[in-house]
Amino acid sequence: MNKASLVQCSANYIPLSPISFLERAAVVHGDKISIVYGGVRFSWQQTLERCLKVASAFVHLGISRHDVVAAFAPNIPALYELHFSIPMAGAVLCALNIRLHAPALASILQQLEAKAILVDHQYLEVVLQALDILSQSNSTSKPPLLILIPECDQSSSSSHTDLDLPSGALNYNDLQESAEPGFQILRPNNECDPISVSYTSGSTGNPKGVVYSHRAVYLNSLGAIFQSDMRKIPVFLWTVEMFRCNGWCFPWAVAALGGTNICLRSVTHLCGAPSILKILADASENDQTRVTKSRVEIIVAGALPAPEILIKVTELGFNVSHGYGMTEALGPAIVTPCKPKLESQYNLMMEGVDVKDLNSMESVPYDGKTMGEIMLRGNTLMLGYLKNSNPNHEVFKGGWYRTGDLAVRHSDGYIQMKDRARDIIISGGESISTLEVEAVLLTHPQILEAAVVGKHDEVLGETPCAFVKLKEGFGGGGEDSCKEIVKFCEEKLPVFMVPQAFVFGDLPNSTGRVQKFVLKKKANLVGSQE
Amino acid sequence: MNKASLVQCSANYIPLSPISFLERAAVVHGDKISIVYGGVRFSWQQTLERCLKVASAFVHLGISRHDVVAAFAPNIPALYELHFSIPMAGAVLCALNIRLHAPALASILQQLEAKAILVDHQYLEVVLQALDILSQSNSTSKPPLLILIPECDQSSSSSHTDLDLPSGALNYNDLQESAEPGFQILRPNNECDPISVSYTSGSTGNPKGVVYSHRAVYLNSLGAIFQSDMRKIPVFLWTVEMFRCNGWCFPWAVAALGGTNICLRSVTHLCGAPSILKILADASENDQTRVTKSRVEIIVAGALPAPEILIKVTELGFNVSHGYGMTEALGPAIVTPCKPKLESQYNLMMEGVDVKDLNSMESVPYDGKTMGEIMLRGNTLMLGYLKNSNPNHEVFKGGWYRTGDLAVRHSDGYIQMKDRARDIIISGGESISTLEVEAVLLTHPQILEAAVVGKHDEVLGETPCAFVKLKEGFGGGGEDSCKEIVKFCEEKLPVFMVPQAFVFGDLPNSTGRVQKFVLKKKANLVGSQE
Repeated sequence: MNKASLVQCSANYIPLSPISFLERAAVVHGDKISIVYGGVRFSWQQTLERCLKVASAFVHLGISRHDVVAAFAPNIPALYELHFSIPMAGAVLCALNIRLHAPALASILQQLEAKAILVDHQYLEVVLQALDILSQSNSTSKPPLLILIPECDQSSSSSHTDLDLPSGALNYNDLQESAEPGFQILRPNNECDPISVSYTSGSTGNPKGVVYSHRAVYLNSLGAIFQSDMRKIPVFLWTVEMFRCNGWCFPWAVAALGGTNICLRSVTHLCGAPSILKILADASENDQTRVTKSRVEIIVAGALPAPEILIKVTELGFNVSHGYGMTEALGPAIVTPCKPKLESQYNLMMEGVDVKDLNSMESVPYDGKTMGEIMLRGNTLMLGYLKNSNPNHEVFKGGWYRTGDLAVRHSDGYIQMKDRARDIIISGGESISTLEVEAVLLTHPQILEAAVVGKHDEVLGETPCAFVKLKEGFGGGGEDSCKEIVKFCEEKLPVFMVPQAFVFGDLPNSTGRVQKFVLKKKANLVGSQE
Repeated sequence: MNKASLVQCSANYIPLSPISFLERAAVVHGDKISIVYGGVRFSWQQTLERCLKVASAFVHLGISRHDVVAAFAPNIPALYELHFSIPMAGAVLCALNIRLHAPALASILQQLEAKAILVDHQYLEVVLQALDILSQSNSTSKPPLLILIPECDQSSSSSHTDLDLPSGALNYNDLQESAEPGFQILRPNNECDPISVSYTSGSTGNPKGVVYSHRAVYLNSLGAIFQSDMRKIPVFLWTVEMFRCNGWCFPWAVAALGGTNICLRSVTHLCGAPSILKILADASENDQTRVTKSRVEIIVAGALPAPEILIKVTELGFNVSHGYGMTEALGPAIVTPCKPKLESQYNLMMEGVDVKDLNSMESVPYDGKTMGEIMLRGNTLMLGYLKNSNPNHEVFKGGWYRTGDLAVRHSDGYIQMKDRARDIIISGGESISTLEVEAVLLTHPQILEAAVVGKHDEVLGETPCAFVKLKEGFGGGGEDSCKEIVKFCEEKLPVFMVPQAFVFGDLPNSTGRVQKFVLKKKANLVGSQE
């Protein structure tokens, strides 16, 4: 076929961008409810109008293409709107983790060089502290313009605060009003242009800024819809935080389907993690309203929930799937429905999901034994880390994203994750998955949290050391607890996997994730308590 | 943001192609049923293997990148497989309309310069005739290699035919067996490379070869899933022919979801058209098995079905939507669920759907009166026509695809199609939608088919002339029928829209569509029969 006469023009080639989803929703679902937040309701037509106004205001403020605009807010309507309005101004969204403390936030802001930061009124204090730290540093870049987001249903004049705002600070509601009509959306010139940055949780060191493209986010929004088997006009309860991989792309996916976003301010750090299921399962009868009309889909990330919790939650009317993913892959890359037969259903947008030998890059055999690294390929993977000390090409070496997670492959293709490559314990020649030991510990009736790391051992190389937080009412741990837990583990684990040392107390964590690199240092300082 | 350190490599940028859907289905849904055809069953793993073998055989036969490979077959498993195996060999699929007669087929084959043509055993005769015509023409290009597709469950040796095959002709089953192992899929280098050609029906002149890209087909497959609200693991009954815009992309969409294709040889020309609903509604009680467990989604293209048919079919358990589209847009671009309130839900993949003034390119007001042309923009539009006499840029003039269809826009955004621009009748200054007159005619109890065109008139410019085919048992038409139908029309239409002339008999059609350009010539030759 002679391709010469074929055409690529603005009628048949439009850079992919989730901005299109909102434009379409305003036409196709214009009068349907887009956002519910307390007593506030917006329609899709209103949401488009509000986003256009804010985008126009950003441009008017001098924010230009590829500038970063940060947001520090819980799952409120404004944060939802910023997922569209910032890209509409050609800028790059960075939704920040609201559990960052001021020094960590200051460090990220220094790297980010954001032109503006939009701050929910409830979180103003920590941001002001961070800006203060920033102003005392040697940073040469201009501090970001602060834009306060008042409570959604309050006018800007009534949203005064006791805190002193920096000079020039603006108000989100005023942006809505100052905008000029007839604003033209600054669509990406290239669909691989960046749309957002999300910071990793920092469980393995400093948080890294992961950059996504318009194309990746567009495709992953569709992938997210497939993965959760969403239908037209869904009602989406915002439990996962929008600052985690942009809420797994659901802000854009719900717009694609013209659904309704139920926004909640009071999202706790448990949401999206398996423990949300435990909360549901443990709720009192009065609080458990059975979902009778239709089943509700839940995807949890993190460790696989315990069977007894799954059974209870399934009875309540939920379909639970277990997601495996990471910030670098825009959220869940593999989703396994929690059914008797575990099948790894990788995201429709993943072009390749494999467990490979790190050196030979050969796929491991489907034998349930041979360990390899989980590797991913797909249009939804990040463009790279922002200002990374190592060149970004390294994480993509060999044309695959190296997750750093070790797994085996079962005969039916099911990928069972064993551990992070850096966390696995080699003890007397045996590989010990710390995740497997933790899973057993968590089934102990007294244990609330548990983390296992390798502790140096002269003879075996390493032995497992368990950091344990007991539930309230079971004291702070001690020799009796140790013996009891060791006995419990010996019944359920091969002897080489039973922890040889225990430390009781709170676990160090960064934005909800246990920092194992901190625990490893600690483990080597404590003596065996047995 | 400094973009310099960001990466675009084979880990995070893979040209979009529906080939990926099959590769994933073979992993994620490997042992699930992909195809059911009579007593034949394939799993997704088998379908991938079969396609790889045929692709490998194509490459072995010397078929190379961008070569066209044609298929002439009903909705059998082989045609499904060719939607993957031909692109896997880097080649371009052309699924031909099996109702073409030999001269028309020869004319298309001459333009197509296909390297091979795969022919279902039932359709061998017409293809041999066409090849014969081709060999007698002055064509300099080599005739396509003929590959016979025997009945699916029969071995190639038992599939002998009484017809003489050209020398060198091959058998599809032998291709399956001759393939070499370890074949590497020839993925597109660029996602905008062509994947298929589909011919228009030729209702307005000669059929045109419409070229689609891998990108368009990938995205439209996802769009088709959204449009039909398909969920995971659907069961898809093949009623729409795969040669129509590649079955509206459902061959690829079903693979994306790991569903089951129910293939049927005996697809009639009614399928996909509104009349399929009439057949369902008119079926005897015994044949009507109520769909009780879950509702079945139907999208019909063509004229809007009559309300009484819709009510009956809805009661039987079907959700009916009305699709508006064309080969150039890869099938339905606007889908309107048949509900009391009509809402134009344009395809998720459409970036722009508008009704515009042809000259000013301004959108028409939402007044239900002002007529304009329906125009489309989106990544799923064709790359252009194959060897078109007019430059392809013309149909995309102004950055929009000009459909040639006239419509009005109602206050709620609903797009009501009035007529094709070339068919609308201007009579004494009034615009007459021939579709509206035809819709009324079709509600007459004696009328089976109807087509209305403009007939030259000295005074009014044009008047409506109706071509009518009566149902069996109502004779061949005549003065009585005329009077009766005129009276019927006068009750339902403004007087200027009532046909002034009638012609009874079969309607000329090309592959199922009435050729109005033929009727217009006829209309001006006949005298008024009133």
